[in-house]
Amino acid sequence: MLIELRPGTPAEAAEEVAALAGAHEDVTAWPVSLAGRVFVVVSGDESLARVPASPAVLARRPTPDGHWLVRRENGVAPREVTIGSPAGSGREIGGGAVGGARLWWAAGPCALESAEDAVETALAVKAQGAHALRAGLSKTRSSPYNFPGKGARGLEALAEVRRAAAIPVITEVCDPREVEAVAEVADCLQVDGRQLDNRPLLAELGAQPRPVLLMRGPRASLDDWLRAAEFVLARGNAAVVLCAGASGTPPQPGFSAIAALRARTDLPVVFDPSHSTGSASLVAPASLAAAAYGADGLLIESCVKPERMYRPGDAAHMFPPESLADLVSACERARDSARSLAVSR
Amino acid sequence: MLIELRPGTPAEAAEEVAALAGAHEDVTAWPVSLAGRVFVVVSGDESLARVPASPAVLARRPTPDGHWLVRRENGVAPREVTIGSPAGSGREIGGGAVGGARLWWAAGPCALESAEDAVETALAVKAQGAHALRAGLSKTRSSPYNFPGKGARGLEALAEVRRAAAIPVITEVCDPREVEAVAEVADCLQVDGRQLDNRPLLAELGAQPRPVLLMRGPRASLDDWLRAAEFVLARGNAAVVLCAGASGTPPQPGFSAIAALRARTDLPVVFDPSHSTGSASLVAPASLAAAAYGADGLLIESCVKPERMYRPGDAAHMFPPESLADLVSACERARDSARSLAVSR
Amino acid sequence: MLIELRPGTPAEAAEEVAALAGAHEDVTAWPVSLAGRVFVVVSGDESLARVPASPAVLARRPTPDGHWLVRRENGVAPREVTIGSPAGSGREIGGGAVGGARLWWAAGPCALESAEDAVETALAVKAQGAHALRAGLSKTRSSPYNFPGKGARGLEALAEVRRAAAIPVITEVCDPREVEAVAEVADCLQVDGRQLDNRPLLAELGAQPRPVLLMRGPRASLDDWLRAAEFVLARGNAAVVLCAGASGTPPQPGFSAIAALRARTDLPVVFDPSHSTGSASLVAPASLAAAAYGADGLLIESCVKPERMYRPGDAAHMFPPESLADLVSACERARDSARSLAVSR
Amino acid sequence: MLIELRPGTPAEAAEEVAALAGAHEDVTAWPVSLAGRVFVVVSGDESLARVPASPAVLARRPTPDGHWLVRRENGVAPREVTIGSPAGSGREIGGGAVGGARLWWAAGPCALESAEDAVETALAVKAQGAHALRAGLSKTRSSPYNFPGKGARGLEALAEVRRAAAIPVITEVCDPREVEAVAEVADCLQVDGRQLDNRPLLAELGAQPRPVLLMRGPRASLDDWLRAAEFVLARGNAAVVLCAGASGTPPQPGFSAIAALRARTDLPVVFDPSHSTGSASLVAPASLAAAAYGADGLLIESCVKPERMYRPGDAAHMFPPESLADLVSACERARDSARSLAVSR
Repeated sequence: MLIELRPGTPAEAAEEVAALAGAHEDVTAWPVSLAGRVFVVVSGDESLARVPASPAVLARRPTPDGHWLVRRENGVAPREVTIGSPAGSGREIGGGAVGGARLWWAAGPCALESAEDAVETALAVKAQGAHALRAGLSKTRSSPYNFPGKGARGLEALAEVRRAAAIPVITEVCDPREVEAVAEVADCLQVDGRQLDNRPLLAELGAQPRPVLLMRGPRASLDDWLRAAEFVLARGNAAVVLCAGASGTPPQPGFSAIAALRARTDLPVVFDPSHSTGSASLVAPASLAAAAYGADGLLIESCVKPERMYRPGDAAHMFPPESLADLVSACERARDSARSLAVSR
Repeated sequence: MLIELRPGTPAEAAEEVAALAGAHEDVTAWPVSLAGRVFVVVSGDESLARVPASPAVLARRPTPDGHWLVRRENGVAPREVTIGSPAGSGREIGGGAVGGARLWWAAGPCALESAEDAVETALAVKAQGAHALRAGLSKTRSSPYNFPGKGARGLEALAEVRRAAAIPVITEVCDPREVEAVAEVADCLQVDGRQLDNRPLLAELGAQPRPVLLMRGPRASLDDWLRAAEFVLARGNAAVVLCAGASGTPPQPGFSAIAALRARTDLPVVFDPSHSTGSASLVAPASLAAAAYGADGLLIESCVKPERMYRPGDAAHMFPPESLADLVSACERARDSARSLAVSR
Repeated sequence: MLIELRPGTPAEAAEEVAALAGAHEDVTAWPVSLAGRVFVVVSGDESLARVPASPAVLARRPTPDGHWLVRRENGVAPREVTIGSPAGSGREIGGGAVGGARLWWAAGPCALESAEDAVETALAVKAQGAHALRAGLSKTRSSPYNFPGKGARGLEALAEVRRAAAIPVITEVCDPREVEAVAEVADCLQVDGRQLDNRPLLAELGAQPRPVLLMRGPRASLDDWLRAAEFVLARGNAAVVLCAGASGTPPQPGFSAIAALRARTDLPVVFDPSHSTGSASLVAPASLAAAAYGADGLLIESCVKPERMYRPGDAAHMFPPESLADLVSACERARDSARSLAVSR
Repeated sequence: MLIELRPGTPAEAAEEVAALAGAHEDVTAWPVSLAGRVFVVVSGDESLARVPASPAVLARRPTPDGHWLVRRENGVAPREVTIGSPAGSGREIGGGAVGGARLWWAAGPCALESAEDAVETALAVKAQGAHALRAGLSKTRSSPYNFPGKGARGLEALAEVRRAAAIPVITEVCDPREVEAVAEVADCLQVDGRQLDNRPLLAELGAQPRPVLLMRGPRASLDDWLRAAEFVLARGNAAVVLCAGASGTPPQPGFSAIAALRARTDLPVVFDPSHSTGSASLVAPASLAAAAYGADGLLIESCVKPERMYRPGDAAHMFPPESLADLVSACERARDSARSLAVSR
């Protein structure tokens, strides 16, 4: 349950309402400010949660589906999220559905390996117009024998790449204990789709100020995904970007989700044409398709020296950096075609 | 098992090999000519089937996966299939992957209702450049209470529409007893994806001369689908066009299948952006996506007076005829973009 | 839509109502008598179907879900179906949920191969207490190169087995053109789960007098399956037995369906522990599980000389005939345990 | 990759091999002792990992599937795991496949609510013969608005229940930061199936001494599940019990997994008949089925006062404590029947 307080309710009064709402030992409650509004999040079963009698209370917001803050009709989730400082290469994602804004896009290797190579890739994709570099410090690996990313050890290297190429960086995190340190370096924190049920991680991401890039779990429903986003918003961080990819059984690129999300949430939606297809040869068709379906952006696997990657298999995903600008232009044209052919029935 | 005979083997000799190969009471065998080559199809478990000692025998072709004729590497399946007489509006489908050919496309209502409306629709889509009209006589319905199509009763109406609009017609058939009569009127026979296991129907379709448009079953694997096509080729009809649509759990437009089929078969592949999305508002994005993925054609639900359809729900699928030419042009541009950005790794 | 007529409405009057209800050229309607009640089945979209003003009309029965006759609350579907003549080894299936009736069961090879072996198997399973022999004449095969069963050629052999062993026989049929001839020999006609959308086949099965054993499609929902049964009842044959097996993605034995069907239909439900598991070593656990979940019967792959089967792989499914009686007794105990532990909440 | 060292290799020498194997900055390696054998776990891509030249090295153990330690043929995973002190009510799970051991079972509410009620339930299920009480401190919740369990706040209550009822306790944990504290109180730590990709959590569980009860993820393959277990073993804790439940799309009780695991791993396998069915009325059939399929144990939702639970919906899952002993006896009979009917082909 959510309790919305009157606009302008001072922090102290909000804390007081939270204390009363969470009076039962198996209920916790805390205030959050989002989009200029003040809420008290009440975590506990409906039968125990109480709406205190307080003049600060504006309305009780029932949450039968487990998400309320993310939903379009409630006006809390932002239409645009900015990754990096707009003064630099940073740019807002989203908002384009109604205007004529250009596609946002980021590129880079899935995992940060050598810092030197990463700088080179960062410069190459920036030259093509990329708005951010993606380079993961942590990877959700299904086996203890695979490289899980540099983790906290790689923070310095990431900071160096960011500085040297002067481009915002996006990196994955999967341990709640590492969120704080990573947030000090990265411009955006990425969450693997297999961590949508990692509640402690999502709570930490909600309690720090960087935008969160939330991948869809390969088998997650749209509601599962939106509820994971709700965990982040419910801790006070509304800067969530949804990144669609493969979904369903067997997994295939889930373009339909892009259109389906539009009706449910204002949060920006980008698409990953690389992991969702598993092959560089399908990056162009998948990117065009995502753009036609209305994606606000693209997150593309690309690097300058794929032959130097730790796993030869990873190289097969890498789209050549020199074709990125052409790819994005073609995607913008496909998006414009789809818009001009839109049928409203 | 297949037995390939020497090129030029006379019919009588082929029949003789078939008689020997099918000598066991639980084996049947018959000759077919495809792509200038001669085969004997042997239907029966491997332990019973025999390759006769005959000078006509060129090679035994094992069929462990249940399909051989459809597979690209065996050179039997055609790269192009022609629907209707090329002298009229008819045109070949396929072959475009290597050249610069234009997209083939057909449009029309799922089921033929009023002949008068169908003529009007046929003229409207022909004016936009359609290469065929689709109007079903039979529908695979999941309930005995729904309109199953006019069936054989509608043949005259279909013939009239075809004549009046001078456009090739595609119609669905689901009863093996109706194939012969329908083939006398229609230019192409469509098979619903839920009939891929309807062996008697597929056998009849293989024994008549019209091209067959074989939809993908919503839960069929690519191999299931190709084996259904193999049933048609194995009876002597190589003019099969595969029509991709929704697939997977939950069902979503299966664009990946288009690319995946390219590596396996030369049979032309078209896409149905209407049933696979269930909404006219998604026809444009789905068509653009299919074209980017390399589809040879599109099969679009469209009609001039959707408000007169029997079921109001059906109207929601209908793309406006007047936008069809623009849609197809945009699709050709998306296809060209994807081709020019192709990465071979 | 269904129209229920007053009990005792004469055939002529029912035909008259049907003629009026199906007056539109795209509506067909016909009368059926089921469970002492008279209905007119109206096949055509709701917007076209008419309920005639006639004193014979008792009530309009809307069919929004595509099934009405099969549903428990409507009292048309029978609680018991009898396969074979009860004077012989034949016995009713079902009815046991409320009484203490013993399990019904049948066994035999999936496909009839040698008549001689089939007689031997029939005698062996009859000696163990089987109520019927299953031996298929037609198999739904996914490849044209596999043995599709003897088809109509095998009718004489089947008749001989039935006579020699004096046991009811169940056989599969998949071509609507063969239904009539098969119904003259077999005591029960089995339909493969991949034929649930084969409308012409189901209609023929509804128009003949033998019980129909309707397998669940591996990917069919309960509603898909019940709608297929509705096709049979809607043609006048209420003797439908549902046979559960594997379901879901990936396929696994669908025991839950047994319990779920109880709440929806009175039609008897049996289980196939052989095809649903693919291994003789899992037949005992799957049979026990099915019985615990409330199955009315079992359909078990078994034969006396598995090493003589056409495909060595088939032998791996065969449960030893000599253990069948013990298996069924154990299943009855498991069923009794489950009943005595039933919790109603 | 794993490196097996010679038996008896001293800790110092093992650390030395690990240091050499993990010399590359993107490789980590550490020694573990399991089942009297010594291994060095090497985490990092194959192209970077090195097997040092050392007399301590016995063999390189490739891990292409991501699991080696859990696999039956490698003899490391234990056949029996003991929860609680065998001197008390504690008992080993597993080992029964070859002997005549009785089923292990635990019962209790999913989440610990009131300590007083939990003591009462603990005494009730202990009187029926339960070997442990399950009472969760943390629940993996899909929404921030639902009760996530008492978390660390509830440790004292759990300790009290354990002491008062003198029964081993099993409790869920989902935050790596809480593992250490929970392991000081609980006899077994349960992991929700949606945490199989929560690498930091699994690593912490591998580094503490309590047995781990690892639920199957509803959409996890057997390999996904075994790889999660491998994470725990790879940190040195071999006491893993696998708990099967619902799986597949749509989810249904996954009994087949029990039999399938037997061929792959010696780790004990238990079944959860409550969450996998969602209804107390299906607990008996599901338990009987699981036992017939060879489960080593059962984990049953049960409590004395379901009407006092926070969520009325949870009460519908609770099996009545007074029928538990009868249920388990019936399950043992079903298991014995299945064993005596076992077919080995």
